[in-house]
Amino acid sequence: MIPTPLEIPTLRRLIAAGTLTPQSLAAALLDRLETYPDPAVFITRRPRADILAEAATIDPALPLAGMLFAVKDNIDVAGLPTTAACPDYTYHPAQDATVVARLRAAGAIVLGKANLDQFATGLNGTRSPYGAPRCVFDADYISGGSSSGSAVAVAAGLCVFALGTDTAGSGRIPAAFNNLIGLKPTRGRIPATGAVPACQSLDCISIMANSAADAALILTIAQGHDPADPYSRAPHDIALPSHPRLGILADPERYFADDAAYQSLHEAALHAAAALGWTLTEIDYAPFRAAAALLYEDAFVAERLSAIRPFFRAHDQHMNPTVRAIIAGADRFDAADAFAAQTRLQSLRARAMQAFEHIDALLLPTAPTCFTVAAMQSQPMVHNATLGRYTNFVNLFDLAAVALPAGFRPDGIGFGMTLIAPAFTDHALLHLADQLHHSIGAGSGKSRATAQHHTMPPPSNRISLIVAGAHLSGMALNHELTALGATLEETTTTAPDYRLVALATSPPKPGLLRDPSFTGPGIAVERWSLTQAAFAQFVAALPAPMTIGKVTLADGTTHPGFSCEPQATTTATDITHHGGWRTYRAALANP
Amino acid sequence: MIPTPLEIPTLRRLIAAGTLTPQSLAAALLDRLETYPDPAVFITRRPRADILAEAATIDPALPLAGMLFAVKDNIDVAGLPTTAACPDYTYHPAQDATVVARLRAAGAIVLGKANLDQFATGLNGTRSPYGAPRCVFDADYISGGSSSGSAVAVAAGLCVFALGTDTAGSGRIPAAFNNLIGLKPTRGRIPATGAVPACQSLDCISIMANSAADAALILTIAQGHDPADPYSRAPHDIALPSHPRLGILADPERYFADDAAYQSLHEAALHAAAALGWTLTEIDYAPFRAAAALLYEDAFVAERLSAIRPFFRAHDQHMNPTVRAIIAGADRFDAADAFAAQTRLQSLRARAMQAFEHIDALLLPTAPTCFTVAAMQSQPMVHNATLGRYTNFVNLFDLAAVALPAGFRPDGIGFGMTLIAPAFTDHALLHLADQLHHSIGAGSGKSRATAQHHTMPPPSNRISLIVAGAHLSGMALNHELTALGATLEETTTTAPDYRLVALATSPPKPGLLRDPSFTGPGIAVERWSLTQAAFAQFVAALPAPMTIGKVTLADGTTHPGFSCEPQATTTATDITHHGGWRTYRAALANP
Repeated sequence: MIPTPLEIPTLRRLIAAGTLTPQSLAAALLDRLETYPDPAVFITRRPRADILAEAATIDPALPLAGMLFAVKDNIDVAGLPTTAACPDYTYHPAQDATVVARLRAAGAIVLGKANLDQFATGLNGTRSPYGAPRCVFDADYISGGSSSGSAVAVAAGLCVFALGTDTAGSGRIPAAFNNLIGLKPTRGRIPATGAVPACQSLDCISIMANSAADAALILTIAQGHDPADPYSRAPHDIALPSHPRLGILADPERYFADDAAYQSLHEAALHAAAALGWTLTEIDYAPFRAAAALLYEDAFVAERLSAIRPFFRAHDQHMNPTVRAIIAGADRFDAADAFAAQTRLQSLRARAMQAFEHIDALLLPTAPTCFTVAAMQSQPMVHNATLGRYTNFVNLFDLAAVALPAGFRPDGIGFGMTLIAPAFTDHALLHLADQLHHSIGAGSGKSRATAQHHTMPPPSNRISLIVAGAHLSGMALNHELTALGATLEETTTTAPDYRLVALATSPPKPGLLRDPSFTGPGIAVERWSLTQAAFAQFVAALPAPMTIGKVTLADGTTHPGFSCEPQATTTATDITHHGGWRTYRAALANP
Repeated sequence: MIPTPLEIPTLRRLIAAGTLTPQSLAAALLDRLETYPDPAVFITRRPRADILAEAATIDPALPLAGMLFAVKDNIDVAGLPTTAACPDYTYHPAQDATVVARLRAAGAIVLGKANLDQFATGLNGTRSPYGAPRCVFDADYISGGSSSGSAVAVAAGLCVFALGTDTAGSGRIPAAFNNLIGLKPTRGRIPATGAVPACQSLDCISIMANSAADAALILTIAQGHDPADPYSRAPHDIALPSHPRLGILADPERYFADDAAYQSLHEAALHAAAALGWTLTEIDYAPFRAAAALLYEDAFVAERLSAIRPFFRAHDQHMNPTVRAIIAGADRFDAADAFAAQTRLQSLRARAMQAFEHIDALLLPTAPTCFTVAAMQSQPMVHNATLGRYTNFVNLFDLAAVALPAGFRPDGIGFGMTLIAPAFTDHALLHLADQLHHSIGAGSGKSRATAQHHTMPPPSNRISLIVAGAHLSGMALNHELTALGATLEETTTTAPDYRLVALATSPPKPGLLRDPSFTGPGIAVERWSLTQAAFAQFVAALPAPMTIGKVTLADGTTHPGFSCEPQATTTATDITHHGGWRTYRAALANP
């Protein structure tokens, strides 16, 4: 009766049909939680009775009605303690974090506070006095962290989605090992009000879910400016081409810490991306790698001290020894060092961003390998640095990222790939991640089952333009479109009631004319897409007598497209019988 | 023969006419320099023979052919020492700074290296072992700084323009006291490669000129991404409305250090702005004021140390004692303090930026008062902080600013106002500054003479749209334009060869049709302007049969504007004799 994986549209349909209720769903998931063998997933579980009582009052029409979610225990939930996995630090918040309040207002129900690496300092999941949550595929292996409990809770099917935080990779790394979508949104897109800061200028609330579509829905509800968070930013959406140019690692940078299985999975994922028609280009990874190293090795660690200084001075002896050692490292740096580190970062960023002149997004492995808990504990600093090799730079460079399931080692441990692009491409990245996720076919979570509702529309801020003449691919003015970064979306025909006429322009152009009294075969056209800015530039520069109006296609959809001034048609020749401008021009050239 | 003030279009016209040559202009200005009484303006003068030899080889067709300019002595000019006003720091650059190279490539000629407050640390102009340049209006008064020599050189008519740097106000403050346009561009718009860093993340190359039009021309040549400067940014232009909403100080924030003359001049400037039809709104200045204080009082001072640490450790005893004391203050702060200061700044910025939801730009006094050199030297720290009250926050908040001449105290000292708006509004601010400058009528420089060529086109990234029907002011669909932030630019008529027809649409709309065989009175239209994004949204949403093409106006200019599909005109009624849609609709309503 409970679908696998727990995906929101399916659950909503079952609730709408009366097959499930928020209460019956919650009861079933609470039953699972009670028998789940790993005791380290949650730091605080909400009482069963509280959850069932809340479920009974939820309006089932809400977009997240009855969707249980786990909250990383560095994010406030009113009525539950916030520990940041440091018992001495515990406080009892009176208010939900902004993101929690928004999700609850949309009908979602808090299941409990999930375990984490103390103060979100770590990428492995072993740095908590509440135990080390284990990878859902093998209890000998780390879950990844710092959002360890959040990932395990979703991957084990204990809840529908989870909130993590992600400064250096804390949301993406555990998503990878546990076979989940891990969205690390644009910095500030989801406000961090009510979260314990790690590196406040870099911290992001992250989302773990079974599908990119679920993550997109949750993001839409969670995002939005919050004046209480000074790093909060008003959301907007930047589009990416439907067939993106992806930057990938060159051979010498394909480092997998001798994990041959991960290496093969990485190659298979690149093939899957290429099979989608995406272009893969090797990039200069050096500045990305160097920035990843900066985050823990340079003065940036002092931002972690800055966040908890009075507590640290009083209680550091009660902290996890590794976390304490990392934060104590801040004392080596003075303020001038901090500014020097920012200048170094800015230099690396400027070099790295040159890659984005030739690519739309990066496609990287999420982590180079996964460690056993024993191995991790034997080398806690070195192995942690290895884990962050492909994630640490993302927030430093103000990029958005989506980790996606990309297969399994022979021993069953999950492997992830991450798509990364400039700020505010979140929805565009989710759209691409969704395609690659389902192309690779790893399903999600421990079950590896495939979500049913995986079709996501691309973000809508790219504008279509129907062209029928000199702007068609390969024709005289097509360069005007390509110079503006336009993308060919489809080659099709108009609705039957269009005629084509040859105008007396130079260069020669046709007029695409609707004639309600006419039925023909439709005129051959192309649908291109442009960003808002490119569309505006194109229209503003268009010379008379050409105009932009609306064109209806054979499939009944209507898009912006070419027309012309009425006066231009008075001396024009009807060429409809050629079927399109390209065949007409070819016939002229070869009569 | 030499025009006053030295403005570029006038000088170019005289050179084109043969009245002047680059050599004769250079010789005349060098003569002025040799008799100018203030010995502290330049640290290094270029030899007269070198300048005249260079002038003889300049291509007079270049946009800045023969335009002499002063370069603040923290910006490299190949062949001249760079001192940063600290003799022990002197080095001999092999290359021009990027900005200098660009200006020279456009025909401009370096006159010399201008004095400054040591390491650009100061807003007053008295902190240099090379002497304190004096205000051009009264040698008892400070020139302002740190770009002290640059401002005096332009204001005294010794050169056509000057480069300064502006981190906290170093370009704007001396522009104000010496009656100049002082452009502090968007951070990174002009690369800082080859400039001695002060606070590298905040430093801007600034421009001083006699007119906003000159500053705009120089900016256009000087700007552009430079991979060698990690803080460099690719330029683009954000428009502002032609009748902006300006944020001004509320009464309790109008602090002028008991300078009643400045207080009156400030009020007069606000009246002048209101008389231009601009809207003035009092804003909450508290977060701006608090950020201005942060720049010198908090850990940000450590960025100044970071820029010169090895030199400072070895040579601080040879530095200006005030500058040394300021930079030594950095030692009070550790790296965690630096991050905490950035968080405080971010909080202030988030609060301050709320003002820009209701205003387009700020209009503030440039400085609260001007001090005598004696007063300045008696209280070097306190008075410097007073000078920066209205400038220090601008780079911290990533804003662009233009200081403009706004009148004189009874004793002749110049008073300035500054327009301030978000990054990349540089050209839009210059356009507004130009109008206010000429409305106030303070002229420029010591002569107070008014530039002849002061008309500047508004920045071109706002797109015009000619409307002739339901989108006219007050008509049924006008709200679609106003909801997108469109601005009415003019009410006019089309060229004579347009007809107007009534289409069979709902709501009723006209078709504006060009007919080359027809001559009429022209059709009444309005020209609106929209941002690129708004224009794109408007066109993409426009329903058939309306289209956007090009419309030619009575004045011969052509702009994007309404047309319609040819098929829509077949059943339309000619209403050209009504002269326009508004009169036609009125006639229908009152037959």
